[in-house]
Amino acid sequence: MDYYKNFQTRLDQIKSEGRYREFLNISRYSEKMPFARDHKRNKDIILWCINDYLGMSQNKEVVKAFTTAAQNYGVGSGGTRNIGGNNYEVVNLEKELAQLHNKEAGLVFTSGYVSNDATLSTLVKIFPDIVFFSDESNHASIIEGIRHNKAEKHIFKHNDVGHLEELISKIDPERPKIIVFEAAYSMDGQPAPIKEICDIAEKYNALTYIDEVHTVGLYGKNGAGMSEKLGQAHRIDIIQGTLAKAFGTFGGYITGRRELIDAVRSNASGFIFTTSLPPAVAAAARASIKFVRQYDEGRKELHRKAMLTKQLLVGHRINIIPNDTHIVPVLINDPVRAQQASKMLLDQFSMYIQHINYPTVPKGTERLRITPTPLHSDEMIHELVSAIKVVLTKIKTQEEAA
Amino acid sequence: MDYYKNFQTRLDQIKSEGRYREFLNISRYSEKMPFARDHKRNKDIILWCINDYLGMSQNKEVVKAFTTAAQNYGVGSGGTRNIGGNNYEVVNLEKELAQLHNKEAGLVFTSGYVSNDATLSTLVKIFPDIVFFSDESNHASIIEGIRHNKAEKHIFKHNDVGHLEELISKIDPERPKIIVFEAAYSMDGQPAPIKEICDIAEKYNALTYIDEVHTVGLYGKNGAGMSEKLGQAHRIDIIQGTLAKAFGTFGGYITGRRELIDAVRSNASGFIFTTSLPPAVAAAARASIKFVRQYDEGRKELHRKAMLTKQLLVGHRINIIPNDTHIVPVLINDPVRAQQASKMLLDQFSMYIQHINYPTVPKGTERLRITPTPLHSDEMIHELVSAIKVVLTKIKTQEEAA
Repeated sequence: MDYYKNFQTRLDQIKSEGRYREFLNISRYSEKMPFARDHKRNKDIILWCINDYLGMSQNKEVVKAFTTAAQNYGVGSGGTRNIGGNNYEVVNLEKELAQLHNKEAGLVFTSGYVSNDATLSTLVKIFPDIVFFSDESNHASIIEGIRHNKAEKHIFKHNDVGHLEELISKIDPERPKIIVFEAAYSMDGQPAPIKEICDIAEKYNALTYIDEVHTVGLYGKNGAGMSEKLGQAHRIDIIQGTLAKAFGTFGGYITGRRELIDAVRSNASGFIFTTSLPPAVAAAARASIKFVRQYDEGRKELHRKAMLTKQLLVGHRINIIPNDTHIVPVLINDPVRAQQASKMLLDQFSMYIQHINYPTVPKGTERLRITPTPLHSDEMIHELVSAIKVVLTKIKTQEEAA
Repeated sequence: MDYYKNFQTRLDQIKSEGRYREFLNISRYSEKMPFARDHKRNKDIILWCINDYLGMSQNKEVVKAFTTAAQNYGVGSGGTRNIGGNNYEVVNLEKELAQLHNKEAGLVFTSGYVSNDATLSTLVKIFPDIVFFSDESNHASIIEGIRHNKAEKHIFKHNDVGHLEELISKIDPERPKIIVFEAAYSMDGQPAPIKEICDIAEKYNALTYIDEVHTVGLYGKNGAGMSEKLGQAHRIDIIQGTLAKAFGTFGGYITGRRELIDAVRSNASGFIFTTSLPPAVAAAARASIKFVRQYDEGRKELHRKAMLTKQLLVGHRINIIPNDTHIVPVLINDPVRAQQASKMLLDQFSMYIQHINYPTVPKGTERLRITPTPLHSDEMIHELVSAIKVVLTKIKTQEEAA
């Protein structure tokens, strides 16, 4: 057994499938969003695929809360939540999150990924007989969380409430059940039929678990997400979210009723046995939530700019996945072409849009996923769409010539 | 099915077993380690159980690197490593970690927990037939990582090389194998027989995976851990560590040969689908590693103070687990008494030592786990040991009177 030869073989295989990831090496400039420095190319670029949807990572109040807390308390928390690491800032952040979602309690994890994985894999400890119903497009962290707990699971077709009902109606009414879905799916920008899913949950007495990572901060009167916007938050048992996208910081969370949150807190290995978030991160996240709750103007600008981008793309007859959210997916439908388009945009136009290939999206649906922010100007958007048009035309011409 | 009644029942059960965790609510004071504010008790306390082993979380250069990076780049990275989040600071941190451990490459995760879980659960994708050999005292994150991958596993008795050999010798020589162990076990402070484990690995052609989270920064000429101290680092395939204990910041990592690290980078769900560390955290971690490499004085003081604490405890006939590391476990061997001792130390002496009960340690071995740092004075240590003596005597007297 030559282990290292095997590691190399695995890498060669990924490369041959066009799936090998080469990371950019960038520094974002504070207060100069959406610009960043590309350290490989030694030039400034415009970021068009960042999930810092409102630019809050560079908001003055957020940065100030972060640096002040570090000066007051130091950097690391020094321990797990139970052993010395339950800092005041994390406790306050959980109260803020509970308030934001109008729930009794909140629980903070080291990431959104961990919050899904840890919570979902813990529920089976409390309900050994639980059955999971999971949307087929759910994020990797949800899939892992459900897979880890070894409970019975049923995958329903993407946003297909009829299929969900077909599956759930067959299960013994006495068994505990949970429906797990995302408020909006990150790679196609499709929102979930939240009300209809809640209706099914009510009819069949199932718990509801919504992943709002791509929607918190961006939808609803207080930026509490899609469930707030649609007036359904009170019908959701577990609202899961992230602090690392619209809130511009780091970490993930869940909110819900007191005894549910306390049961997860008391049983989730991925919560218990890990160092708590630095106080500075928690302080910055709280400052960001407070700011974003009031930041209707930012939300409006975000949606206006996403709409403008889509309209211009459609006007240029560029193939997008239509949706009502802030995510703009340009379909390329080929892994090599997608990679090529991304590279040309960066090399020739200094515009960075990461191409999204399998396994993040199904094969044959490769795409460029654009996330305009309030900090991209209308002029930038016009330039972006022109550049995409040029690049896609070039690729087509080259292919036809070959 | 009344879900919330079930959540409550689960909590009641944990409470009835004396395992319900009540978190302290504290703020550490920057530059005043080991002091902190207890917000429930409204008083200052001395921390005796923090894993910020060298006080690096409050080191001026570390705090400065943290705040400067935030001012330059903002707080959050804004994306996964692949989609916009591969910041310059994280790239440099990985180079620094590879250098520290004298390996070709490093890979940073959002936590030490995730680095174990993600790496171990990924290896089976590369070696579907792999067999795991895991020390029975391994950390929860290792247990979860191995459990998640559904590979064949064998648990060997704690630090028992004979038992390990007995198990490994029975497995088909052609099958890939990996031995997973900790450099020193956090709850009893026992170091692993690293050389002997490496000998077995060599004899049976197994990969070696060492968890150095409680030893990096504290052992070896460069603070690269127990494997450096014992001259065995070159025999270890994967050295895993944390940035959140001796380095005083946040996050976890692995180091190893280029193709191994690249294969994990390219396959680990818990690495790929999560927002990268904030640039400020990475910058602070790098500053800390640079400092700690030179900080022999801190290491010496740490070990002298741990030794002093143990000697004084033994002098007072207090039952400790003897070991050669910086961890001082005082055996109480009863969950209620351990909780009582912790509470009395905090209420009456303003000294915080979290009691460690099941499931973190086996039932009947409940303990107080003390971690003296270079910033605890000799006088504080004398006062601590006297206080423990008083508290344990009181508990004994109360029990005898009852």
